Amino acid sequence: MEAVTISAIEAAADRIAGHVRRTPMANSASLSELCGAPVHLKLEHWQETGAFKLRGATNAVLSLSDEERARGVVAASTGNHGRALAHAAKKAGARCTVSMSKLVPQNKLDAIAALGAEIRIVGNSQDDAQIEVDRLAREDGMVPLPPFDHPDIIAGQGTIGLEIVKDLPDAETVLVPLSGGGLIAGVAAAIKAQAPGTRIVGISMARGAAMQASLAAGHPVEVKELPTLADSLGGGIGLDNRLTFQMVRDLVDEVVLLTEAEIAAGMRHAYFQEREILEGGAAVGIAALLAGKVEARGPIVALLSGRNVAMDLHARIMAGANGLEEAA
Amino acid sequence: MEAVTISAIEAAADRIAGHVRRTPMANSASLSELCGAPVHLKLEHWQETGAFKLRGATNAVLSLSDEERARGVVAASTGNHGRALAHAAKKAGARCTVSMSKLVPQNKLDAIAALGAEIRIVGNSQDDAQIEVDRLAREDGMVPLPPFDHPDIIAGQGTIGLEIVKDLPDAETVLVPLSGGGLIAGVAAAIKAQAPGTRIVGISMARGAAMQASLAAGHPVEVKELPTLADSLGGGIGLDNRLTFQMVRDLVDEVVLLTEAEIAAGMRHAYFQEREILEGGAAVGIAALLAGKVEARGPIVALLSGRNVAMDLHARIMAGANGLEEAA
Repeated sequence: MEAVTISAIEAAADRIAGHVRRTPMANSASLSELCGAPVHLKLEHWQETGAFKLRGATNAVLSLSDEERARGVVAASTGNHGRALAHAAKKAGARCTVSMSKLVPQNKLDAIAALGAEIRIVGNSQDDAQIEVDRLAREDGMVPLPPFDHPDIIAGQGTIGLEIVKDLPDAETVLVPLSGGGLIAGVAAAIKAQAPGTRIVGISMARGAAMQASLAAGHPVEVKELPTLADSLGGGIGLDNRLTFQMVRDLVDEVVLLTEAEIAAGMRHAYFQEREILEGGAAVGIAALLAGKVEARGPIVALLSGRNVAMDLHARIMAGANGLEEAA
Repeated sequence: MEAVTISAIEAAADRIAGHVRRTPMANSASLSELCGAPVHLKLEHWQETGAFKLRGATNAVLSLSDEERARGVVAASTGNHGRALAHAAKKAGARCTVSMSKLVPQNKLDAIAALGAEIRIVGNSQDDAQIEVDRLAREDGMVPLPPFDHPDIIAGQGTIGLEIVKDLPDAETVLVPLSGGGLIAGVAAAIKAQAPGTRIVGISMARGAAMQASLAAGHPVEVKELPTLADSLGGGIGLDNRLTFQMVRDLVDEVVLLTEAEIAAGMRHAYFQEREILEGGAAVGIAALLAGKVEARGPIVALLSGRNVAMDLHARIMAGANGLEEAA
């Protein structure tokens, strides 16, 4: 399958304009001083629903034909993607079903239900929930919209890259959270098409970095999912990955892995120095700079991707806990 | 002197477009449930420099003639207004001098200096700093731009009211932090001109509420300034007040006063439920709803005005402190 192009991303930007927030960029005085180069923060955690995922979900829902929209969309995510998809579907007047296992906590279920999505409780695992998604697609004709490995999702996330180039055309280095690769693939495609010399750095937690393991193996591999502060970056890339593996391999210059303590330090810096509340997976750009794990070739952009963190956990990290165990 | 009109506010909106952030409005699920009416948050604390003050300062600086701009602007504020004025002047290529007493802490001085303003250290009090402002105006021809009692400042802040009406034309109640009255006068003028039935509620801390005391007396009076979590709402309205006293008297429907513990609870709600970091003076709308001190006639808008809080203090309030003494 072909990689997502700049023209697909530009079309996505036109499509979602007015439906998602155009987020600002802000200079970080503290990080600029620390790095000896200008550091800018792309404040995408200010996006509606609290995460960048709304861009891809909105682009995908708005790309449906009338007939597809009538059939409705379905996904198994109970995290940022599920939330974004429910929101985008509601706005577009499309049916949305989110399939979940019995183990999903009530508060996550309530948050998705509050956005108007139909909830389907099936089985005891994420795999069981995915089987129900496949069944709803096959038998009821619903349109499955997966969290990252889909051209419309990638193109939607890529609109962030267009905004970065517009706001800071001379960016030398862009730091992007890396999980399934939908965000970084879209952002890298948008930026490299316009500024090929810009270095794109993907950042994951060391605990269960599926894309990094796949890149090392030369093909998609499974990794064990482990508890991490960057829980939104967890999960596999899919053994049958169609798009993001090859795009990340071809477009991303470097991948950096972080310890839990480094991620916690990034979250604390965001709060105490930048007055921003970030989920662990969104603080990895700041964390990588603080840890000295990225060459400070500036101007640097750190993409802050979401803020959907449990606030009791956040408060314990702010009080000094350096990981989930210490915060428990 | 004549009150600021809707056409002056519309002109200000045209003038500052592209120079300040157009901030979004967000529904609060938790407050809507609590109040039994839709509650929306105007996220003006996301403004550049961390406070709404940038709107008024930018409008005032951009309203200067070329000749005035060459003479430069001067103020005595070391808080949100000083910061905003320095920022606006730098962007407009105007000289800016901020006069401060010797007692101003180094970090506040550094923050203003980092925005390119010239610092003038004079005497031992805010009054001494103001005397230097008057001298620079008289002898050097600099243009004094006071923090609230000035038509261009009020018109700039009023642009927030235009955005509220645009985003939520059927708002019944708008909750606005009340200090010197520049913000609420502008917002009320903008809203009442378009939606006269909308109730405008001003909210201050009980400790040193200068405008409330002046309204009660029927003329501007001095009040003793006391330490408060809502420090950005402290200070007098000026015994020679020209504009904001009469505008607040004529346009504001009700004033509510809050205890320190109520303000602290508002800051905690913003963090734990809304994932927003607010200074005490910006949390008063949320705090008034939580305290049941405002009739919940909806849709309700709470204007969140700034986030320039000392983060060590913020963290101690999040940990449960109910005022400055407990947080010390």
